[in-house]
Amino acid sequence: MKRRYAILAPGRFATDAKTAHGVIAYGEDDVVAVIDPGHAGRCVANVLPYLRSDAPIVATVAEALQYEPTALLIGTAPKGGALPPDWRKAVLDAIDAKLEIVSGLHDMLGDDREFHVAAMHAGTTIWDVRKPPEVPLFSGDVYAVDAPILLLVGNDCAVGKMTVALELVNAARERGTNARFVPTGQTGIMIAGWGISIDRVISDFAPGATEQLVLYAAHEGADLIVVEGQGAINHPAYSPVTLALMTGSAPDALVLVCDPTRTHIESYPTPTLGYRELIALHETLLATIKPASVVGIALNTRRLDESAARAEIERAHRETGLPADDVVRFGPGRLYAEIAPRIVKRQPLQAAPVA
Amino acid sequence: MKRRYAILAPGRFATDAKTAHGVIAYGEDDVVAVIDPGHAGRCVANVLPYLRSDAPIVATVAEALQYEPTALLIGTAPKGGALPPDWRKAVLDAIDAKLEIVSGLHDMLGDDREFHVAAMHAGTTIWDVRKPPEVPLFSGDVYAVDAPILLLVGNDCAVGKMTVALELVNAARERGTNARFVPTGQTGIMIAGWGISIDRVISDFAPGATEQLVLYAAHEGADLIVVEGQGAINHPAYSPVTLALMTGSAPDALVLVCDPTRTHIESYPTPTLGYRELIALHETLLATIKPASVVGIALNTRRLDESAARAEIERAHRETGLPADDVVRFGPGRLYAEIAPRIVKRQPLQAAPVA
Repeated sequence: MKRRYAILAPGRFATDAKTAHGVIAYGEDDVVAVIDPGHAGRCVANVLPYLRSDAPIVATVAEALQYEPTALLIGTAPKGGALPPDWRKAVLDAIDAKLEIVSGLHDMLGDDREFHVAAMHAGTTIWDVRKPPEVPLFSGDVYAVDAPILLLVGNDCAVGKMTVALELVNAARERGTNARFVPTGQTGIMIAGWGISIDRVISDFAPGATEQLVLYAAHEGADLIVVEGQGAINHPAYSPVTLALMTGSAPDALVLVCDPTRTHIESYPTPTLGYRELIALHETLLATIKPASVVGIALNTRRLDESAARAEIERAHRETGLPADDVVRFGPGRLYAEIAPRIVKRQPLQAAPVA
Repeated sequence: MKRRYAILAPGRFATDAKTAHGVIAYGEDDVVAVIDPGHAGRCVANVLPYLRSDAPIVATVAEALQYEPTALLIGTAPKGGALPPDWRKAVLDAIDAKLEIVSGLHDMLGDDREFHVAAMHAGTTIWDVRKPPEVPLFSGDVYAVDAPILLLVGNDCAVGKMTVALELVNAARERGTNARFVPTGQTGIMIAGWGISIDRVISDFAPGATEQLVLYAAHEGADLIVVEGQGAINHPAYSPVTLALMTGSAPDALVLVCDPTRTHIESYPTPTLGYRELIALHETLLATIKPASVVGIALNTRRLDESAARAEIERAHRETGLPADDVVRFGPGRLYAEIAPRIVKRQPLQAAPVA
């Protein structure tokens, strides 16, 4: 059943609420109200037109209740990862109103004694989406999934892998393909209403957690499974998460997401790699377990003007021979149409039986 | 200060106590007694001559106390990972005698209420070596370490990467190099008396945990830092741990450890890779962050007779042009002498500053 979210973002909705914006733009669940006293009385589209939502903005949880929410979503991830102290009352009010609490904060709200006790009394639950469940080791069951599996990879973190995945899913659905988005990070989880934050899983179990997500999407009857990517294969800190997604999701095809203006991995001296290097590195690694090809390039050209963006898209295509586009700037339809025929089911390598 | 271990392995010392054997053979700490009633009255070398230890075997903790242990080591990792119920009394006796308890069991002894309370009363501690400490994200500080860093990698798990690391450290020390072993798994930690089980660290922090271990070894004044490897780069479940060690330890050189009789990754259909493929894959990946070369091949020829072993060593050398040997079968001296001049300090890539 779909959630009906009230989103808590006091003083921050317009400026600093990436999670809230993602859930409004792409969420599977409905957003029925936003709580931010500074904008009370307006609606979302008045404040942020590109979100195209007429959900009302109110000042308090009590006012939000008239729109019959079933859950309160913590709409921002403030620095330090803790709940701002002046938000506690709103969370307690929501718990008392029997709303489910959904949080992507670093600090686990379910481990807060006061919230925990209040939720028990009210008979509601607290879902800390960053807290991974217990998962089994990677089993190889994912190799038997019939639907093709598409994994997003990229030249750095925070280049738009999640957005590209969501846009491609939308484009596939418009063409009648039952595509499903597989969330692997906190914003993606809030958007889809399920998933596991793979970067929080104990290293040994990260491929197994990824496999479970793909199996779940397959079980739901997807025709195309689109797995959100994380990090970058040459990221000094996050590449193990990238590799866990590569081995655990056992993709049939990859889409490469690049911000062409990045010269180095965020916060590290490591240079970003070129298109051909990235393609070769991912394909070479996967060829040792289950081969997969990069089938297209999605560019994030946000920092370029339109003619520079078109030139970069053309360069990416010329260098690699692959379809390339910016699916946010120019829409996902063309790129999806060009990559769809290239997504073909592949089989894992099987060692020859010992003679 | 060195620990003085009594090792608890009732009914299992001779057959099923890999941890105990590793600590006796290679440990930095002393083993003053083994507790196994079935062999009481004998010494370790009577039961397992290759361990060359005259530590006495006794029936109970009380009897072990005459040898003045400072710690009780749980000497086996039984299936399921829990402490056998009939071992509880021995652990409690050891706690009452103020011994430190050191355990690599999956179940955390420090989380056991009875043990926890007893240890508090006795004023002693319980060290669950598999429990990782809180660690920072990878920082890049490891790039400033002066001592060369050597990382072990391999064609599968459980092929002897830890043993090769320990043998190379011994060979280096015999030649006057202050080499230090950096433990990254539970048996290695017990042998060295410090370390972190990297496979238990949350994915995002696994490179950071590895970096901290290398910084610690550097701080202790090592001339050569030898990092225990884990998994394999094409292991469907454990490759993220392998990659975390590669990015986090920022090695200057690699030694490749292979069991040439393995045709596939243990428990998975994935074929093992050949020497040249393994070398290319590791070097290509590291070349995107901090270049490193494979400088030698250590073969585990345990399943081959001596002439087949020598033929395989010759084949590995011929195929790759690298020094190759089995350091357990033929001693580490020759391989170490040949690789030592090849271990040269390397620098990480640095993105060109933006013009």
